Amino acid sequence: MNYAVILAGGVGSRFWPFSRELEPKQFMKVIGEESLLQTTIQRLKGVVPPERIYIVTNNIYFHEVKAQVAGSGIPDKNIILEPQGKNTAPAIGLCARLISRIDKDALLLVLPSDHYVKNPGNFKKTLKKAIACAKNDLLVTIGIKPGAASTGYGYIKAGAQVKAGKGAEYFRVEKFLEKPDLKKARKYFKDRHFYWNSGMFVWKARVFLEEVKRYLPDLYTNLKRIDSVKDIPNVWPRIRAISVDYGVMEHSRRIALIPATFYWTDLGSWDALAEIFPKDKKGNITNSNTLSLDSRGICVFARGNRLISAIGIKDTVIADTPDALLVCDRNKTQDVRRLVEKLKSLNRKEHQAHLTERRPWGSFTVLQQGIGFKIKLIELTPKKRLSLQRHKNRAEHWVVVSGTAKITSSGKESFVRSNESVYIPKGKKHRLENPLRVPLKIVEVQTGMYLEEDDIERFEDDFKR
Amino acid sequence: MNYAVILAGGVGSRFWPFSRELEPKQFMKVIGEESLLQTTIQRLKGVVPPERIYIVTNNIYFHEVKAQVAGSGIPDKNIILEPQGKNTAPAIGLCARLISRIDKDALLLVLPSDHYVKNPGNFKKTLKKAIACAKNDLLVTIGIKPGAASTGYGYIKAGAQVKAGKGAEYFRVEKFLEKPDLKKARKYFKDRHFYWNSGMFVWKARVFLEEVKRYLPDLYTNLKRIDSVKDIPNVWPRIRAISVDYGVMEHSRRIALIPATFYWTDLGSWDALAEIFPKDKKGNITNSNTLSLDSRGICVFARGNRLISAIGIKDTVIADTPDALLVCDRNKTQDVRRLVEKLKSLNRKEHQAHLTERRPWGSFTVLQQGIGFKIKLIELTPKKRLSLQRHKNRAEHWVVVSGTAKITSSGKESFVRSNESVYIPKGKKHRLENPLRVPLKIVEVQTGMYLEEDDIERFEDDFKR
Repeated sequence: MNYAVILAGGVGSRFWPFSRELEPKQFMKVIGEESLLQTTIQRLKGVVPPERIYIVTNNIYFHEVKAQVAGSGIPDKNIILEPQGKNTAPAIGLCARLISRIDKDALLLVLPSDHYVKNPGNFKKTLKKAIACAKNDLLVTIGIKPGAASTGYGYIKAGAQVKAGKGAEYFRVEKFLEKPDLKKARKYFKDRHFYWNSGMFVWKARVFLEEVKRYLPDLYTNLKRIDSVKDIPNVWPRIRAISVDYGVMEHSRRIALIPATFYWTDLGSWDALAEIFPKDKKGNITNSNTLSLDSRGICVFARGNRLISAIGIKDTVIADTPDALLVCDRNKTQDVRRLVEKLKSLNRKEHQAHLTERRPWGSFTVLQQGIGFKIKLIELTPKKRLSLQRHKNRAEHWVVVSGTAKITSSGKESFVRSNESVYIPKGKKHRLENPLRVPLKIVEVQTGMYLEEDDIERFEDDFKR
Repeated sequence: MNYAVILAGGVGSRFWPFSRELEPKQFMKVIGEESLLQTTIQRLKGVVPPERIYIVTNNIYFHEVKAQVAGSGIPDKNIILEPQGKNTAPAIGLCARLISRIDKDALLLVLPSDHYVKNPGNFKKTLKKAIACAKNDLLVTIGIKPGAASTGYGYIKAGAQVKAGKGAEYFRVEKFLEKPDLKKARKYFKDRHFYWNSGMFVWKARVFLEEVKRYLPDLYTNLKRIDSVKDIPNVWPRIRAISVDYGVMEHSRRIALIPATFYWTDLGSWDALAEIFPKDKKGNITNSNTLSLDSRGICVFARGNRLISAIGIKDTVIADTPDALLVCDRNKTQDVRRLVEKLKSLNRKEHQAHLTERRPWGSFTVLQQGIGFKIKLIELTPKKRLSLQRHKNRAEHWVVVSGTAKITSSGKESFVRSNESVYIPKGKKHRLENPLRVPLKIVEVQTGMYLEEDDIERFEDDFKR
C-alpha cells in the first residue's frame, strides 16, 4: 500500500523575519488561508488516505502540527517526533522502519512540507508515474525541468530514458550535483539533461532501507533498534545527521528520475516567494498598507498593519514584522540565512519567536514591556484551557475584552464576562479556560520585578507540558 | 534693546514618519536630549535674555511649546499664537508689531526653530555683527557659504562689501534666487558671490514694518489693527499667507548680508539630517538595534526598539516608527513631502499623529485596538491631572503599573497604587491625577463599541480645553 511521509521538522531561516525557530516556514500561511504543511496534505487527496499519511517533525512542533492537521483525518499517532533534527536521511529512515513494521511492502511518497506546487492535478499524475516506477524496486526522484539558471537548487543529470512497461518510463540518473555557481547553472539550464533536485521521492520502504544498509550502515544499525516510537528517544542521540541526498542518493545505483509536469518552487528565499506573487505594472508586490513613489520591483511582505512606504527603491524585499524589519536586495535573499546566524551569535531573540507566540491553547502577544510590568493580549481557542499554574514573582490583572472566561482561583470557579476583570495575586494557584464556542480575548497586565515565561509552576496541564 | 523672535509654527513634513502634523520637526529631539526649539533657545544665551525671547507658533502647539520652554525663563505671554499658519511675513510682522508697541526701538533677531548650528560660539559672533549692522536701519540676512551645490536651498547673490564703521561690515545684496536646478546650483557653488539663504534675519522692528508697509500694504493695514494678542483672532483670518523672502526680501533695497562663520543646515530632509550624524567605515548610520550585511550608506533612524536589518542595501534612509516605515533612496528624500501629500489625499492618519500622542498632562500610546476594545499606556507627568470627564460609550479599566494615581470617581477621591486597579463604568464622571513627584504609568483597557478620542465630555480642565 502507499504511504506518505511528510518531512516537517525543518527550522528554515531563509524567510526570517516571518519564519522563526518556533514558527518555521512549513507552518506559515504563505499564500491563502492554509499553511504550506496543510497545502501539502491537501495535495495528497485521492493519492494517499489520511490514515496513511505520516508527518515526521521535531518534538517542539508537536502541538503546532497537531493543531494544523486537526480535521484532516490524520491520526495523532502518525505524527512521528524526533527529539533532535538529524537531517533527512534519519527522518525518512525512521518512517521507513516504523511503517515497514506495519506493512512490509509499504511504498512511501516522501514529500517536503514547505514547497509550492502550482498545479495539483499534474502533481498527482507525476506521483502516479513515480509510484508505478518505484514498484520496480527503484528509488524514484522527481526532477524539475529548470525554469531559470538558478544557483539555489541542487541539480540532477539524467541519463538514458528507460521503458519498464505499464507506463513506467523513467530516466536513469548519471549524477547528483550540488548548488552550482552562476556559470555552471547557466550551462545546466541550457542542457536538457539537467533537472532540479526537488527533494520529493517515491520508493518502497524495504528498498530504501536496503540502500541505507549499504551506504549508511551506522544509521541502519540504529534504525533496527527502533521497534516502536517509544524507542526513538533512546536511539536518536546516537544518530549522525546526514541528508538523504548526500547519504543515499549520490551513491545508490537504483535511482530513477521522473520529470515533474507541474510548476514547482522550494520557496527557498524571499526572492523565490516573490516570484509566485502577482505584481503591479512596475513589478511591485504591495498591499493596502503600502505607499510607494518611483519604485519598481519592491516586494512588500507585512505581518501586522504598519504603513510601509518606499521612495525611489528598486528590486528590494521589505519584510516587516512587529519586532523586526528586513530590507534586502532581491539578489541577496540567500544571505538572510547569514543574518540569522549573526542574530544567534549576538544572543538576540528575534530569530526565536514572534511577539505573538502560539501555544496549544491559542496564542499571546506581548504588547509592551516596562520596568515592573508587561502587557499581553491573550487569545484562547474555544474549549481550551491553560494549565493550572502559579507564579512566584508576578501578579496578573485580567480584563476580558471578548468572550467569557472561566477562571479558577484558589479552587473557586467563576465566569468573567466581557468588560469584567479579575485579579490573580502573586503565588495564587489559578487556571484560565475558554468554556464557550467563541474565541476568548483577555488583556493581561502583569506586575512584578521578574516577568519571564519561566516563572511558571504547572500543576495540571491538558497538553502534558 | 534686542529681542529674539523664534518662528515655531511650521508643519514640516519632510521628516515624516518622525515628524507628524501634531509633532513637527522643531519639537523633535533630533540630536541629544533637547528638541531643535530648545537648542535654538539655548543658543541665544548671552545674546538675548529669556524675558525678551518671543516664540510665534500655531495655536495647536501652545501646550507643547509651553512644556518645552518650561524652566528657560521665557514667560508664557511671550508665546504668540497664530490661529492659522500664514507663512513667515505675517508671523514676523505680528511680533514686530507687538514688540514695537512695548519698545519702539526694538531690534529683532528672527530665527527659525528647526535648524542645526554646529558652533554656537561662532553663531553668537555672527549675530553680534548682524546686530551692529542692523543698527544702521538695514534688513540684515545671514548668508551661509555653500558647502555643496545644493538644490535644496534658496540662494542670495551678494554684491559689493561695505564698511559702515564699528565693525559693521556687510555685503550688499544683488538678488534673491529660488531653489535652483542642479546645473545652476553648480554654477552658484563655484561663484564666491553666492550664499545660501538661511532664513535668519536681524532688523529693527520699526524698519521691518516700514518695508512691510511699502511692499505688503495689505499686511501692514491688518497688523495695525492688532494692539494686543487679544486682537489676533479677529484679524488673522483676513491675512494672506506669504513668505518674508517673497514678500519683503526680494523687493527691499535696504538689505545687507552678513556671512555666517558657523556650520549650518536647515535639516530640510532626511539626507540633510544624515549629513550631521557620525557614520561607520561603510558610511552607515546605525544603532544598537541595526544589523546589516553588505550594505553601505544606509541611514537608519528608529523610533521604537524594533530590530532593523539590511542586506545589500546602498544609500538608503530607513526611518522606522511604530505605525509607519519609510524606505527612501538618499537622493530622493525631498520627495517625502509628496508622500505625505499622498497620505493626506488618501485620508490616512499616519501623517497626523504618532501612536504615542502628547498631551499637556503627559502622553498616551495606543498599544492595540480590536473590535470592542482599545489598550493604552498612559503616562502622567508629576503633579498633572487630566480633565474631569465622562464618556458616553466606553468603560475604562485602569491598572496602575508605576507610581500612584489619585482618582476621582462620582465625586469620591481614592489613591490607587502600583499593582492596584480601578474600574470606571460608562457614563461616570471621573478624573485621573498624578499627585506625586514621580511619573505615573497606567494601563488603560477601554471597552465599548465606540472608542474614539472625541467621546469625551469635559467638566473642568487645567488646560482650558
